[in-house]
Amino acid sequence: MPRPPRRRRPADLERPARAARGAGGFERSRDYVQSLARGLAVLRSAGGPDEPATLAEIAAGAGLSRAAARRLVLTLEHLGYLRAAGRGFALAPRVLELGYGYLGGLGLTDIAQPFMERLSSRVGESCSMAVLDGQQIIYVARVPVRKVMTVSLAVGAHLPAYCTSMGRVLLAGLGPEEFDRWLAACRPVRLTPRTVTDKARLRRIVDGVRRRGHAWVQQELEAGLCSLAVPVRDRRAAVIAAINIGMAYHPGARGRAQRELLPALVEAARAIGRSLPPGPAAPART
Amino acid sequence: MPRPPRRRRPADLERPARAARGAGGFERSRDYVQSLARGLAVLRSAGGPDEPATLAEIAAGAGLSRAAARRLVLTLEHLGYLRAAGRGFALAPRVLELGYGYLGGLGLTDIAQPFMERLSSRVGESCSMAVLDGQQIIYVARVPVRKVMTVSLAVGAHLPAYCTSMGRVLLAGLGPEEFDRWLAACRPVRLTPRTVTDKARLRRIVDGVRRRGHAWVQQELEAGLCSLAVPVRDRRAAVIAAINIGMAYHPGARGRAQRELLPALVEAARAIGRSLPPGPAAPART
Repeated sequence: MPRPPRRRRPADLERPARAARGAGGFERSRDYVQSLARGLAVLRSAGGPDEPATLAEIAAGAGLSRAAARRLVLTLEHLGYLRAAGRGFALAPRVLELGYGYLGGLGLTDIAQPFMERLSSRVGESCSMAVLDGQQIIYVARVPVRKVMTVSLAVGAHLPAYCTSMGRVLLAGLGPEEFDRWLAACRPVRLTPRTVTDKARLRRIVDGVRRRGHAWVQQELEAGLCSLAVPVRDRRAAVIAAINIGMAYHPGARGRAQRELLPALVEAARAIGRSLPPGPAAPART
Repeated sequence: MPRPPRRRRPADLERPARAARGAGGFERSRDYVQSLARGLAVLRSAGGPDEPATLAEIAAGAGLSRAAARRLVLTLEHLGYLRAAGRGFALAPRVLELGYGYLGGLGLTDIAQPFMERLSSRVGESCSMAVLDGQQIIYVARVPVRKVMTVSLAVGAHLPAYCTSMGRVLLAGLGPEEFDRWLAACRPVRLTPRTVTDKARLRRIVDGVRRRGHAWVQQELEAGLCSLAVPVRDRRAAVIAAINIGMAYHPGARGRAQRELLPALVEAARAIGRSLPPGPAAPART
């Protein structure tokens, strides 16, 4: 994987002793800044620009008392991340700045987007790109198509890795030990009657994805939704992201995906990989 | 403007007395959560995924001591927003989640993107959408084209409003009193020899943009860069965003923009506006 070699970190950057980690250990250490964690929880539970949330709703969403939430909300409003709207608060566009540091430094998405657009208009379906973030995948680029049934996902959306096509492609790109750790930590939930939650079966599925070079997921995340994904590899063949095509389920969906969509998706992923600059690419996961 | 009517806020949401506001007033009040503000400053000064920053660099960027920055960095790493990379730290994809609440709730960008893609491929230039955030514009959608000279901007990027075409279009959409307040707070900086920094002249320029319905800015933000922008209006004709086409400067750029690009840009903006659902749209500014 294209991660720089892990050099020793200066002594004061060592995390608190291992015993203090995991299971809330760090959160009891002197290094944990609780009000920062709580403020970010408030940001995550605030409503979108069209759906302001009241202080009570924000407090409940962030698991905080109203008094604790109030100071955080007023501070976030003062800093321009929230705006007052009626009796509530809504996210302000400034929150996009926080993600911009990531996307702007990624490069990958700017390189990928024209290829994804061409693919999407060629096959008439939405195309997305995601990277792995622990148990989740996070969307880093998306080209939606307008259909009657649209999937509401934008850059920054997160979905569970175990039941998504891009998740399985990214998992297939992990080393064996990393995958074992991932699987041990995974807590699969039955989201539809078709969701695979058995860990031994998940392992076999990911092995199959690695062999075949693509993942097809049919109605495991949501009834009526299918998706085909392939890895994007850098010049050293390391998986740095996944791209997919999402589509509505119909009885012929899988056949069409194999015949028509897979060659186009593979071609787009290769074109993106060939267009990447030499040198270490952004990691597909943290 | 499509903002909901401002109802009275519950008593405990009133901001601290007016005397305590402005010029750091709130920041001295008991309601200000300093470590949250500092943590967000750390996130803003952390490096992109390919450019990890050391603790010293992050501390300097956020204007903090190394000791203060250290606890914030370790907390952000624990929460998954930063990842350790070599001797430094880089932003992790989870930061995109913070902006997702805004974009995912906006709706506008999903509606706009197909029109922007069509426009971009028709004219062969990058197309972007932005909203106003105080003195800045913030990119909420972007369709880049691959050229030798590319402009490195992604969703969440911010640029000054006074010297950008989208900024001037959004300023032209403000009410007279709002614009007066905006202009009083504006601190224009000469970014190129062509940047207009005289406030009386800026007012005349924005008046002209309002009359003509579009803004053309030539090399005021950066030498070699030009841009044409028009407003996106909701069904009540309120300006809710701006879209633009950016291009490299050449002597014929303005003529081509007027002849060829302006009709296509106006058509795209109208199509986006017509596709918006009825009811209050997302505000173009906070």
